[in-house]
Amino acid sequence: MGDDAAVLSPFVGEAIVSTDVAVLGVHLEASLFPLEDLGYKAVTAALSDLAAMGARPRGLVVAVTAPPGTDLDALHRGVAEAAALTNTPVVGGDLSRASDVAVTVTVFGECPGRGAVLRSGAKEGDELLVTGPLGRAAAGLRLRREGAALSNELVEAHRRPWPRLAEGMAARGAHVHAMMDLSDGIGLDLHRLADASNVGFALEEIPVAPGATEEEATSGGEDYELLIATNDPGRLRMMFADRGLRAPITLGVVVGDPLVRTLRGEPFVRRGFEHQL
Amino acid sequence: MGDDAAVLSPFVGEAIVSTDVAVLGVHLEASLFPLEDLGYKAVTAALSDLAAMGARPRGLVVAVTAPPGTDLDALHRGVAEAAALTNTPVVGGDLSRASDVAVTVTVFGECPGRGAVLRSGAKEGDELLVTGPLGRAAAGLRLRREGAALSNELVEAHRRPWPRLAEGMAARGAHVHAMMDLSDGIGLDLHRLADASNVGFALEEIPVAPGATEEEATSGGEDYELLIATNDPGRLRMMFADRGLRAPITLGVVVGDPLVRTLRGEPFVRRGFEHQL
Repeated sequence: MGDDAAVLSPFVGEAIVSTDVAVLGVHLEASLFPLEDLGYKAVTAALSDLAAMGARPRGLVVAVTAPPGTDLDALHRGVAEAAALTNTPVVGGDLSRASDVAVTVTVFGECPGRGAVLRSGAKEGDELLVTGPLGRAAAGLRLRREGAALSNELVEAHRRPWPRLAEGMAARGAHVHAMMDLSDGIGLDLHRLADASNVGFALEEIPVAPGATEEEATSGGEDYELLIATNDPGRLRMMFADRGLRAPITLGVVVGDPLVRTLRGEPFVRRGFEHQL
Repeated sequence: MGDDAAVLSPFVGEAIVSTDVAVLGVHLEASLFPLEDLGYKAVTAALSDLAAMGARPRGLVVAVTAPPGTDLDALHRGVAEAAALTNTPVVGGDLSRASDVAVTVTVFGECPGRGAVLRSGAKEGDELLVTGPLGRAAAGLRLRREGAALSNELVEAHRRPWPRLAEGMAARGAHVHAMMDLSDGIGLDLHRLADASNVGFALEEIPVAPGATEEEATSGGEDYELLIATNDPGRLRMMFADRGLRAPITLGVVVGDPLVRTLRGEPFVRRGFEHQL
């Protein structure tokens, strides 16, 4: 800090980088949530990308734009809280005047030993698993709009999503074939993983979180659970159990035909949050 | 690309990171310059921070916010041009709707061998040098406001600043004591280097670029020349000459008393572009 750029001790193995921008009014409803949530969520979204590769975070930088009079302390509090909870040092930043309040977080991490886990490695016969039940963040947003308190458990899931860094590192250690984070809903993200791997899938179950609807579990974004494809689910479960992590939930299997995309035998259509201007 | 995060082969030595945000209307006058200049300048500003550490760029990520209808191709053209000219791969990005057009560029590089050069290492007796004459960018902005063509040489210096990456790496190789880039004008940045090193300085000369005023050379920003302190200027000059780089220009010397800050014996007051909301 105070220098032109941040200096970090050498990385071990591949270097992993991701950038995410969060805009007040787009990524967070300003009338429903405190400003610090924007900082917190920008950090989580970026760290979740590292989790999805199985990377260990090494640090983050944050660039903020805001109009004069913005409560920058609140924004920074959110960034600092998410960074501290995940042991990720904030090593630099930039600040500019602008009309929008926007926070761009860039994270970088390392993958000691084996390389990063990509989306494109799923193979026919792999088991598909997810690190937790889905729809909590979308349910929390709905409840908040209906007047629920900020401290409501599902509202907290929307405000304070947790990047699955420990799970991602454990899955990489278990030699899983493919992985990604569910930022836009499994109804969209699973298709992306299948597209990248040139495979199809046959799901038996979408695990719906208590309090969420099936639609929220399918197309609600920002859960940040990890989606995993592996030919050795026993090893994955053992690794998770050893590290005190919640057991992953089996969704179904990968099939070789990329046109087969089913849930309990019915077509599983692509839907979820598509980004656009 | 297409994965959650970018994967780069292992870095050699320290990892160096910097982030810079450029906002249309703040960092670039929309009525005077094409949109692609915003992308170009955001990349340059960030890469110049790597240059200032003596780092070799390894890649960059770019996050863009823009209202619907923005010419994103133009923005990306500017980013891609600056990245290509400096051999820096664009490895990832993010995009969001917003009111402002803003580009956040995060660069990362490596420092093989010796570590990065900081601002804080200047010592009494060091020679102070700069990699080129100053004030070109500020003069170019003035000329453009007066109606000069986009192709005017000084206007180009404002639109297409060049990060001094080769010079920074050569200076690190020459074991200089301290270095920084002149992004906010030497009238401010030299004081920052002196503050960080707890030293003063006695300048004999501020090199004014042809076509620029002395005031533009002193307090105009965005020249991105490097300011260097070294006890072995002969080695620095030889290293620059070996690599075909223009000879650095001597400004004066570092003095031990941090209260002594003079130009030709007169007080050299702190002035230049101070960032604020």
